[in-house]
Amino acid sequence: MQFQIIKKLGKSKGGADKILGRAGIITTAHGEIHTPAFVPVATKATVKALTPEMVRDLGAEIVLGNTYHLYLQPGDEVVRDAGGLAKFMGWHGLPREAEAEWGPTITDSGGFQVFSLGVAYGKGISKVTQITEPSLLIPERFDDSDAPGLAKIGADGVSFKSHLDGSLHYITPEKSIQIQHNLGADIIFAFDECTSPAEDLRYQEEALERTHRWAERSLEEHQKLNKENKVALFGIVQGGRDENLRKKSAKVISSMGFDGFGIGGSFAKEDMSSAVRWVNEILPEEKPRHLLGIGEPEDLFMGVENGVDLFDCVAPTRNGRNGTLYTKRGKINIMNAKFARDFLSIDSDCGCHTCRNFTKGYLNHLFKGKEMLAGTLATIHNLYFIVNLVKKIRQSILEARFLELKDEFLSLYNK
Amino acid sequence: MQFQIIKKLGKSKGGADKILGRAGIITTAHGEIHTPAFVPVATKATVKALTPEMVRDLGAEIVLGNTYHLYLQPGDEVVRDAGGLAKFMGWHGLPREAEAEWGPTITDSGGFQVFSLGVAYGKGISKVTQITEPSLLIPERFDDSDAPGLAKIGADGVSFKSHLDGSLHYITPEKSIQIQHNLGADIIFAFDECTSPAEDLRYQEEALERTHRWAERSLEEHQKLNKENKVALFGIVQGGRDENLRKKSAKVISSMGFDGFGIGGSFAKEDMSSAVRWVNEILPEEKPRHLLGIGEPEDLFMGVENGVDLFDCVAPTRNGRNGTLYTKRGKINIMNAKFARDFLSIDSDCGCHTCRNFTKGYLNHLFKGKEMLAGTLATIHNLYFIVNLVKKIRQSILEARFLELKDEFLSLYNK
Repeated sequence: MQFQIIKKLGKSKGGADKILGRAGIITTAHGEIHTPAFVPVATKATVKALTPEMVRDLGAEIVLGNTYHLYLQPGDEVVRDAGGLAKFMGWHGLPREAEAEWGPTITDSGGFQVFSLGVAYGKGISKVTQITEPSLLIPERFDDSDAPGLAKIGADGVSFKSHLDGSLHYITPEKSIQIQHNLGADIIFAFDECTSPAEDLRYQEEALERTHRWAERSLEEHQKLNKENKVALFGIVQGGRDENLRKKSAKVISSMGFDGFGIGGSFAKEDMSSAVRWVNEILPEEKPRHLLGIGEPEDLFMGVENGVDLFDCVAPTRNGRNGTLYTKRGKINIMNAKFARDFLSIDSDCGCHTCRNFTKGYLNHLFKGKEMLAGTLATIHNLYFIVNLVKKIRQSILEARFLELKDEFLSLYNK
Repeated sequence: MQFQIIKKLGKSKGGADKILGRAGIITTAHGEIHTPAFVPVATKATVKALTPEMVRDLGAEIVLGNTYHLYLQPGDEVVRDAGGLAKFMGWHGLPREAEAEWGPTITDSGGFQVFSLGVAYGKGISKVTQITEPSLLIPERFDDSDAPGLAKIGADGVSFKSHLDGSLHYITPEKSIQIQHNLGADIIFAFDECTSPAEDLRYQEEALERTHRWAERSLEEHQKLNKENKVALFGIVQGGRDENLRKKSAKVISSMGFDGFGIGGSFAKEDMSSAVRWVNEILPEEKPRHLLGIGEPEDLFMGVENGVDLFDCVAPTRNGRNGTLYTKRGKINIMNAKFARDFLSIDSDCGCHTCRNFTKGYLNHLFKGKEMLAGTLATIHNLYFIVNLVKKIRQSILEARFLELKDEFLSLYNK
């Protein structure tokens, strides 16, 4: 994997001097990703409700599968025997190149499940409470509908019960890396612990120490398995909302020799930009940074401005299936009765397949009728909206008008 | 609407002398249909789980919407105001012609619901019983999942309760035709009563008289509304399993001046071919015939051999969503564990999007994971299989080798 920075953002208004947003190109064995880029989530080797062709046609260059889910079903060895994640799910890159039949993919480490499946519950914090609490932003790296039972964390790894058949599993950093090598993505992640923001500082420190030890072990295992040097391993920076811990984590993870970085964790929404800035001031400029599980429009601008190159989030796809659609004037609920006789497209400026071919009235009808096509057409629109918003942001960097685009977009979007 | 017969089948082995299968072309204001043809069912203005583009790409030239469902939701006036069924659902024909932006469509009359929603229940016959009774073939013109409450039949029409909001509705032949003109399909159907095969002969005679009176009233209303002469009205022949009633119905309906004919009813599977033959020996050769709700491979051969031009059936789409897939060696259940590591396509001879891009192992995974893409990919395959089987049958007529194809296909399919 190679990463080339093509252009840097001009100094932002009141922004830090040391870090700058940038436009670049990540080159993998299976094709290029033009950064900043939004990565659609294909939890179980499918971007929910879409064919890979639809995902490609809406402009995505890479997709992210979820290690935890694929390990449980169909099993990482099945995916390996099928030829790896991209071939298994029929994912072709864009453009389709002769030498690379299959497109670029990412897998996360499964570490996020430590947080979302177990530890937080164990501490008496229900996920539902966190999600309805507006000041807490939960990274949306997989779907609630898939949320399984309890997990238990130890020094060496995490044990958990499968939500599919109740079987017991134990994942260590080594095991996570082995699974990910079986899944065969181009970019994989070190095994980490993503803590709840409600944990106290002592626990955050403990967890961070664990994440750093696990990072080292992940890297060692990866070096054993990566003989052909085709797979890139990203380390994950954690540290919660605490400035010292975030900076410490960025320093420790930077020093280890990863190919790139994930910025993980759950933040209070208002603290997210400072956490990202603290980290990116320290991470080496020449390696790509992936802000994990974040993807709302305002957060994409914030992330890019603070030096983020990659984003992923299930919000566009999940919102789509629920009938919540992005427009340049903010989100709408297409189930609203006022759309039943609205025979215009969702967004007059949108060039997606859905907006080119279907009306709000038809979508309203499909959602009311609980038709599968509803979720498909809405997901196409939402993913196109977000993927292409990040493409526009990239273009604005190249043309040195990022702040103009940001003001223009957000003033209409938040109206 | 015009119908041109291009080639007739050679006399079939032991078949009747008077009727012959044929290949032809139906020309509507919105494009051509090459007959015999299978018409995918778009119950609620969507072929379940597919975009219109997918339906077109798999080779379908026309789709059939369900009057009953569209009347209840979104309402026929909404569809009319949206520009008619084809425009509302974004259905483009094949090939897409400059003068016809939208593709050809059919609506049924809603009369089938008289049978499937009400009368049979009223007589103490549950639909479930009929479906699990193998010797009874229920025409599959809409989905069970959509099956509503009770209906009550009178001399003038049918009253029923909406399964959506419990509101009361009354449909007469005139009302059915008015609704269908609002929906704006190219081919519409007279309002009929489809009786249960379990009814006694006396009831069958009564019901048939009603269907004939309703046919006349449907035709009168249609002539009032069809000022531009763009819409074709098909009369429906009923008569259950009784030879005399079937022949009587064919004569009466033939004499009325319809543009084509539907053959309706539910038959014992073993009686279907004789019922179709009785009817088609009487129906005028120069007008098209649609065998309503029938679409299993063996029945398609039987129908074509006995002079049928059009078929529709929800079996391919419903089977698809349930994981039952057609192959040249018969149907398979893709959920079967033996397919989990089968990395070949569903059918090595199939040219559909699913077979060109995905393996049985991947489909097995998607179905196990309850992913929406499972239903989409399976439906593409099944519809392609059936639509293209009928295309092959058509080609075999043109090349005077229908019986060879029939023997070849069925000997492998039923093995």
